[in-house]
Amino acid sequence: MDFEKIRARLDKLVAEGRKGELRGALSMLNEVDIAEYMEELDNEKMLMVFRLLPKDIAADVFSYMDADQRQRVIEAMDDNEAVRLVDDMFIDDAVDFLEELPAGVVKRVLKGCDAQKRALINQFLRYPENSAGSIMTIEYMELHVGTTVGEAMAEIRRTGLDKETIYTLYVLDAQRKLLGTVALRKLLLAKDDVKVETLMNQQFVCVHTTDDQEMVADAVRKYDLISIPVVDHEERMIGIITIDDIVDVIEEENTEDFEKMAAMLPSEDEYLKTNVLTLAKNRMPWLLFLMISAIFTGMIITHYEDALKTNAFGVVLTACIPMLMGAGGNCGSQASTLTIRGLALGEVEIKDIFKLLWKEVRVGLIVGAVLSVVTFVLYTFVLGDMEMTLAQRVPIALTIAAAVYITVIVAKAIGCTLPLLAKAVHLDPALMASPLITTIVDICSLLVLFAVASELLPV
Amino acid sequence: MDFEKIRARLDKLVAEGRKGELRGALSMLNEVDIAEYMEELDNEKMLMVFRLLPKDIAADVFSYMDADQRQRVIEAMDDNEAVRLVDDMFIDDAVDFLEELPAGVVKRVLKGCDAQKRALINQFLRYPENSAGSIMTIEYMELHVGTTVGEAMAEIRRTGLDKETIYTLYVLDAQRKLLGTVALRKLLLAKDDVKVETLMNQQFVCVHTTDDQEMVADAVRKYDLISIPVVDHEERMIGIITIDDIVDVIEEENTEDFEKMAAMLPSEDEYLKTNVLTLAKNRMPWLLFLMISAIFTGMIITHYEDALKTNAFGVVLTACIPMLMGAGGNCGSQASTLTIRGLALGEVEIKDIFKLLWKEVRVGLIVGAVLSVVTFVLYTFVLGDMEMTLAQRVPIALTIAAAVYITVIVAKAIGCTLPLLAKAVHLDPALMASPLITTIVDICSLLVLFAVASELLPV
Repeated sequence: MDFEKIRARLDKLVAEGRKGELRGALSMLNEVDIAEYMEELDNEKMLMVFRLLPKDIAADVFSYMDADQRQRVIEAMDDNEAVRLVDDMFIDDAVDFLEELPAGVVKRVLKGCDAQKRALINQFLRYPENSAGSIMTIEYMELHVGTTVGEAMAEIRRTGLDKETIYTLYVLDAQRKLLGTVALRKLLLAKDDVKVETLMNQQFVCVHTTDDQEMVADAVRKYDLISIPVVDHEERMIGIITIDDIVDVIEEENTEDFEKMAAMLPSEDEYLKTNVLTLAKNRMPWLLFLMISAIFTGMIITHYEDALKTNAFGVVLTACIPMLMGAGGNCGSQASTLTIRGLALGEVEIKDIFKLLWKEVRVGLIVGAVLSVVTFVLYTFVLGDMEMTLAQRVPIALTIAAAVYITVIVAKAIGCTLPLLAKAVHLDPALMASPLITTIVDICSLLVLFAVASELLPV
Repeated sequence: MDFEKIRARLDKLVAEGRKGELRGALSMLNEVDIAEYMEELDNEKMLMVFRLLPKDIAADVFSYMDADQRQRVIEAMDDNEAVRLVDDMFIDDAVDFLEELPAGVVKRVLKGCDAQKRALINQFLRYPENSAGSIMTIEYMELHVGTTVGEAMAEIRRTGLDKETIYTLYVLDAQRKLLGTVALRKLLLAKDDVKVETLMNQQFVCVHTTDDQEMVADAVRKYDLISIPVVDHEERMIGIITIDDIVDVIEEENTEDFEKMAAMLPSEDEYLKTNVLTLAKNRMPWLLFLMISAIFTGMIITHYEDALKTNAFGVVLTACIPMLMGAGGNCGSQASTLTIRGLALGEVEIKDIFKLLWKEVRVGLIVGAVLSVVTFVLYTFVLGDMEMTLAQRVPIALTIAAAVYITVIVAKAIGCTLPLLAKAVHLDPALMASPLITTIVDICSLLVLFAVASELLPV
């Protein structure tokens, strides 16, 4: 499908206001693409297009818009239109959307909804942010113990159209406690007079309304589910979360990890749509903290001031500091990244700490050996101060090579243990990533360098 | 569910060889948990447990095992057992598994399969790695134009049990060209004599067998699909990819990005299961390249050797280098991380380069202002060489603060443009992450520092 061509054609129809044809053209497109197309229109045109969409398509298109665009649509609408829109949305999409609106608008929209929907939305708005409750939907198919397959199929035909998924059905007892799940395929393949409870799977996985969405995503990923039931603390069925929302959660959590690992406060907004001041605010705390730490690192150099000034090797040692810090920082980041990622995917646990440490130290021994040999050769034959004799250059090159070797091993060890320790004290392991590790390793590498130098070089 | 307790109970049954009870206990568990439990058993016990599982459950459990564990199982089996196992697996799982085996074993196993299955598996094994073809399954439900809803439902009841999903059905013409998709819910809600083509959605999204799995994941995420059809280059339907496999692809691609962004060659194996030599090999190329670059960075310092030695401010300037490099590196990583992530999620495109640059420069102006004011105050009143007079300390502090300001802005600009330029020349933007950016920014920050110093400080 050539999207550019379609866009050009739509633009023409919009510009000329040919509404009938435009409605026809739009009906050929996927809701996601319609939302994307509308994003680039001005308010007036966007609203014209939006009003041409059939009611149910409009609600879907709306749920695919981003926050800005929704705000534009809603501001241009009158209250009745807004209420009708909310009425046509699945409850999770409606709540998502209402959470972004100013309180005054929410009140007006809710006043227009029927009492039942209003009560539900209010309940949803109370779940903590990023909890299972806040992302679930209540449009699931429930069956009661004793229902036959025939009755269940009739029920699905009667009410299934309004459900977010009918492919998994939930069997409840009289107290609404969840007893098991039945896949629609099992119902289809069974005889009409069979009771649903004989088909149900009792080894289902469920989550609680207050569980964090990350935990929900882990369960869905681990057990290859397409939806997961949400229960309250009395194990009563409250809602379900479907995998399309879980995919969004996974990407959101990954983005958060990427941001934290690059020393930023995580943000839920798209980068291009976040304003400059917010971006600056998210980046400032860590930058300040790391900068002040680095100033103190620099003081180590000041401490060795006299040695560096009077010693003939001072300049060579100073000049190798960026390389040493870089190598240490990179080695540490590699180890910490793999550990953080392993923790996020559930492949690594806190109890693996010694296994990891042993692994990283061995990797460090190999990597360190190669790097230090290269360093030694370079500083002896290529980069050394060629006014010095070979006998003078070798101890300097040896000092730097030894410092590299020790730094690499120390960096690997720090890199893999800090994320695990963070996890152990219930901090986010993603905080122990490149920037912080680099700063800590910087200090270590300077201390190692000066310690080795004072052993190997004549002062 | 208390997994520790269950594990202890299973251990007891296994140790005492109480097979009947063990079979009963296992039937209470999810396949994923069974695979996880079996991982910690020795070969003999593992095989005993595996042989107790019903045929279809065994195939599922097997598909949830990791490579090592599968290898252990298959080595302990005779060929007949292996063939039966492959026969019971969905084709995508079977191919996945066969790809990991030594060629000799694959041949033996394939020889035992029936001719049709063998032909299929051979075809699958030829798709390029990480292509849509290599992760698809052919167990989908197809319908032909002209079929009625009643006939379709009968067909589903007849063959649906062997399909990976029956919730989306694919309507083909006589040449097997894909015409549209029908959701099972639509069939359920329609009358028996309606033709399926009247219910089908023609705005479906599909991918080609040779498309990269990352592209497939993007499409599934964008359009909130639970399965996506795969067609060949004549638009003939070949297979489908289901969302549970897409979730794995998403996590795999994210892990690859994390690894590349920490200067490692990406690996598809779990960290704890990769051997030390492979880990070292994956980390070495970038470390070497970055180290050698950093050595040249150090030569900038050597170049200003005389100024640093004779100038009274030399040591203060040297001591501020780690801080300046750190701040620049972190600022650059922040910008590059957001850009790389935006590109991966499709939120940022190459054409946004000036929008991004303008945004990052403004962020840099704000962040740089705060950092340089803090630097100025610290170096003037706290960290300066207190033997100097205030009049001597102010120009040094001013030099360092100005260098910080300029470095921050340059770093932001480099950080956001390099990933976009990489993308433009078809390199992976994730390579332009923290380690490389840091190295480039290191050079810039030193040049800035010495340039500012030669302007502001008496030589």
